[in-house]
Amino acid sequence: MRALMGIVLLLLPNVLLAAERPANVVLIVSDDQGYHDLGSFGATDVRTPHLDRLAQQGTRLTSFYVAWNACTPSRAAFLTGRYPQRNGTYDMIRNDRVDDGYLYSPEEYAVSPEHILGMDEREVFLSNVLSDAGYACGCYGKWDGGQLKRFLPLQRGFDDFYGFCNTGIDYFTHERYGVPSMFAGNEPTTKDKGTYCTTLFRDHALKFIDQNYERPFFLYVPFNAPHSASNLDPEIRGSVQASPEYLAMYPEGKSRSEKRRRGYMAAVTEMDAAIGAIFERLDRYEISDNTLVIFFSDNGGSGTADNQPLQGRKSTMWEGGNRVPCLVRWPGQVPAGKTSDAFLTSLEVFPTACAATGTSLPSGVTLDGFDMLPVLQGKVDSPRKEMFWQRRDEVAVRLGDWKWIDSKKAKGLYYLPDDIGEENDLSEKHPDKVLTLKRRLTEWQQEMEAAEPRRPFRDF
Amino acid sequence: MRALMGIVLLLLPNVLLAAERPANVVLIVSDDQGYHDLGSFGATDVRTPHLDRLAQQGTRLTSFYVAWNACTPSRAAFLTGRYPQRNGTYDMIRNDRVDDGYLYSPEEYAVSPEHILGMDEREVFLSNVLSDAGYACGCYGKWDGGQLKRFLPLQRGFDDFYGFCNTGIDYFTHERYGVPSMFAGNEPTTKDKGTYCTTLFRDHALKFIDQNYERPFFLYVPFNAPHSASNLDPEIRGSVQASPEYLAMYPEGKSRSEKRRRGYMAAVTEMDAAIGAIFERLDRYEISDNTLVIFFSDNGGSGTADNQPLQGRKSTMWEGGNRVPCLVRWPGQVPAGKTSDAFLTSLEVFPTACAATGTSLPSGVTLDGFDMLPVLQGKVDSPRKEMFWQRRDEVAVRLGDWKWIDSKKAKGLYYLPDDIGEENDLSEKHPDKVLTLKRRLTEWQQEMEAAEPRRPFRDF
Repeated sequence: MRALMGIVLLLLPNVLLAAERPANVVLIVSDDQGYHDLGSFGATDVRTPHLDRLAQQGTRLTSFYVAWNACTPSRAAFLTGRYPQRNGTYDMIRNDRVDDGYLYSPEEYAVSPEHILGMDEREVFLSNVLSDAGYACGCYGKWDGGQLKRFLPLQRGFDDFYGFCNTGIDYFTHERYGVPSMFAGNEPTTKDKGTYCTTLFRDHALKFIDQNYERPFFLYVPFNAPHSASNLDPEIRGSVQASPEYLAMYPEGKSRSEKRRRGYMAAVTEMDAAIGAIFERLDRYEISDNTLVIFFSDNGGSGTADNQPLQGRKSTMWEGGNRVPCLVRWPGQVPAGKTSDAFLTSLEVFPTACAATGTSLPSGVTLDGFDMLPVLQGKVDSPRKEMFWQRRDEVAVRLGDWKWIDSKKAKGLYYLPDDIGEENDLSEKHPDKVLTLKRRLTEWQQEMEAAEPRRPFRDF
Repeated sequence: MRALMGIVLLLLPNVLLAAERPANVVLIVSDDQGYHDLGSFGATDVRTPHLDRLAQQGTRLTSFYVAWNACTPSRAAFLTGRYPQRNGTYDMIRNDRVDDGYLYSPEEYAVSPEHILGMDEREVFLSNVLSDAGYACGCYGKWDGGQLKRFLPLQRGFDDFYGFCNTGIDYFTHERYGVPSMFAGNEPTTKDKGTYCTTLFRDHALKFIDQNYERPFFLYVPFNAPHSASNLDPEIRGSVQASPEYLAMYPEGKSRSEKRRRGYMAAVTEMDAAIGAIFERLDRYEISDNTLVIFFSDNGGSGTADNQPLQGRKSTMWEGGNRVPCLVRWPGQVPAGKTSDAFLTSLEVFPTACAATGTSLPSGVTLDGFDMLPVLQGKVDSPRKEMFWQRRDEVAVRLGDWKWIDSKKAKGLYYLPDDIGEENDLSEKHPDKVLTLKRRLTEWQQEMEAAEPRRPFRDF
């Protein structure tokens, strides 16, 4: 392993030569967090002191998009560096009865799609690439990529895993609509039932750092906070759970929506504290300077989340569905206290992590993003000129500063520099622009259609 | 091919040496047909003249069982010659909302389990073995083994396919709850919409014989008759559809159940006529004498089917769920006009077809049945001494003449020679017998558990 690391060092780009060893990567993802729900993005009610410090120490990305407006395909996209339509995970891996309050029997659940389907076994994950380069890889939180053994993180390049693999759980019982859902490694576990899951993910992340701080590592922490809890109890369902200690930081609220916003804010603050503990541990081992940290939300805010000034939310094609708050820190490499409005997406995460660690991109794999470090360093303009979104029959395309949407909940042509809230539909005024964006979208759809057929949704 | 056939001929068992060439195999399966619903099994109301003639020309099996009490795993079992628990298809491949009257959108259906799951790609099908031996293989009717391309008959050894791949359709529109479901080869087709499906399966089977009568062939015709129609219309749902011509053969009936029984009987008679047309075509080419024909129902009768003298029906562990009418004809090889009460199952079909065609059994594959020809020929007693059934947490075991059931709908110990209707529970009188059967069942379950993990339901 050491020998391999030596060889890798020789291949590192200039920026890394000063470092003692290849940079670590810490990728933190929150779940359904609103665009506005961090201090650094304008929140005055939600407290996020550790993420705010991250923003001060790094760069705040205000035009950062994910590739799908809900969790599963969004996650598959940044973990593979490929559009959902290319990597085969272009829909949610879940049952159609989850919103009915229907209680599955264990036997029914065992043969249901959310138990049986998973991200394509043939895909190359960022964890595969970094693991092959000698990195220790740990994943703690919401995997959301399939629950059968062949789909779990340990079969995807990770050395250690603690978390759950469906789209949501109860934060305390770790059940999804009554079905126990936590895994330790490849095995289901109920031993931590009752403990708040953010605490568990934090503790496993800290232990991973303790065990691996002397070697290069990739720590992936996809929190489920502040996603609403999966619970059959109507009092809990659709709300976000937090520990009493964090709930006590916020006024109780009178209306149902105020009470729900309170739980949401407390969950964000509790996650922020867990993130703070991870940063403290990096500081303790004096490896913060050699660690690239990327934080963003997997999709737009839902429930009582605040997405202002964006219109729409999770599951819509508005900016509020796909544009998310993002923070990047790498002392000495990424400017501190800066804001970048560069057009960037989560598809850039994979190539960026490869560049930062001096790891070769996987051969024979078409990636849809690029290393965004030169953009953050102000060396080049963002190479990203376009982005496409498709969810079943809903589509959106951003081409330069223009965005065109065609879906049931959202429609129209918008010029984002003047209208980030997408309030002025310019499609009648600029029919040629609509045509241009539609044509480019069609070309992209044809490219995706011609891509190698992929699991689990493609007919092959 | 001819050269290969010559070699195969040299390897044929004695019984076949007289034949000009290896025997053809015609496997006809009806869907949810009652144990009593053939003239040769006692029906006086349903007309089945062609199947009755088959019974006169061949042997009638009265203790013949399938391996699961509903369609999908039953079919996977006889096509692979293996218990459902061994071949991996040990539950229905269908959605959980089919009985809700819920209308799936095309997008929802596309990512639902009945669209995505299928029989294990690693299994060896009877069609694979016969195709490898140079047989032309055609499948016309209900495939029920998965709808994605990799699961379709053409990828399983068949040269030609026309039919549907889910558990049921509307007989005329060929839709499943509104979703078009017919395939020609690997491609979905709606070109025959409006034509009664038994007619279509018949015509494709006849065309297959026309094209292949000069070479050895395997013709598999799994009719969907008399399964109830998959339709959202409550007037049609839960009933069996037939053509006006065949409906006109039966009195209209007054009660809802009489009307439904009429549709069921008409569908059986229409299927019987289609089977008659297939037999007539074999006669026309003078190949009936060189053709092994096996007919049985995929599981016990449901709806208005008549299972007397058996208790219970489809989806129960009673005899009415798993014991089905079976007829075998092979002039000169299988006695004509005979009835056999030998303990036999659909797991015997695969090895029997291999023996009849002089084809080697697949190497490295554990089969759960045996060649039943010597039993039918009266040369040996049936080697089958036991059979096990498991559907989720429901179990049954037959050991010799005893049967023990443990499920919600059925329970108890029965001595079948005296009590084919399973009316006298002897479990209190013979606790030791119960223990013996339970112990053997447990051993079987352990064997299945230790079998190689298989798709699509096993966690691997």
